[in-house]
Amino acid sequence: MQTAIDEARHGIVHNHGGPFGAVIVRDEEIISRAHNKVLKTNDPTAHAEVLAIRQASSVLGNFDLSGCEIYTTSHPCPMCLAAIYWARIKTLYYGSDMDDVAKIGFDDSHFYDLMKGDVSNSELRTVNISRDRCLELLELWENKPDKKMY
Amino acid sequence: MQTAIDEARHGIVHNHGGPFGAVIVRDEEIISRAHNKVLKTNDPTAHAEVLAIRQASSVLGNFDLSGCEIYTTSHPCPMCLAAIYWARIKTLYYGSDMDDVAKIGFDDSHFYDLMKGDVSNSELRTVNISRDRCLELLELWENKPDKKMY
Repeated sequence: MQTAIDEARHGIVHNHGGPFGAVIVRDEEIISRAHNKVLKTNDPTAHAEVLAIRQASSVLGNFDLSGCEIYTTSHPCPMCLAAIYWARIKTLYYGSDMDDVAKIGFDDSHFYDLMKGDVSNSELRTVNISRDRCLELLELWENKPDKKMY
Repeated sequence: MQTAIDEARHGIVHNHGGPFGAVIVRDEEIISRAHNKVLKTNDPTAHAEVLAIRQASSVLGNFDLSGCEIYTTSHPCPMCLAAIYWARIKTLYYGSDMDDVAKIGFDDSHFYDLMKGDVSNSELRTVNISRDRCLELLELWENKPDKKMY
């Protein structure tokens, strides 16, 4: 966790983004380390966890990080938690929690409430269109003989 | 939506990843278009929506896409939906739904259930450690005079 904290501190000092760092470890070896770079890269997805996952996948040449663990200085937002799910990471160590992060103005906790349906979503209008044409894509994939799941 | 469908079809044919495409539009102009590239890039975060958001943010030089709308061939997974929240996109048009996608073996619906706490999570062990040291990071950020929120 100290490496993740050092990453976060670097990001704060250099104005790269929010005060968050993450480290991915396999067999006690650090595979990747990252801090939030939303401001530096103008990328709203450039959270520490997502960057660490991208980097670890690149290093290991595999989208499946199931042998890995992740250390993150704050509890992941829903985007990062789902990224951890997709990467099949088996253990998540986190420091500060969602309430701590909400107190300094970040929306993680609010986004969890939106996803759970605990609050109504006035910020995003969601419209279902063209379902039939999109279903044809799923059928095309389903019938593809050499498809690979992830 | 037709452009998003064309993107998805391209990805299927070329074995880039799952059968999903996304397009971001501002003032009726296409800003970015992408398809799933999880397999091509070995990146578990390379979903169509995330790639389209990254590209649109790069094109517009802004992490805030609040003037934009997104078209996606399937309902976004939790990672992509939260990315849409972070990007402040105002309208989401989607084609096939989560049940459709679950039928061909993708975990979106399961991940939503995990996030809602509707099912217990046997896949990810979550451990809280070092909270005090991580809280110091939030305090450092909070006391930073030139901090910028996103």
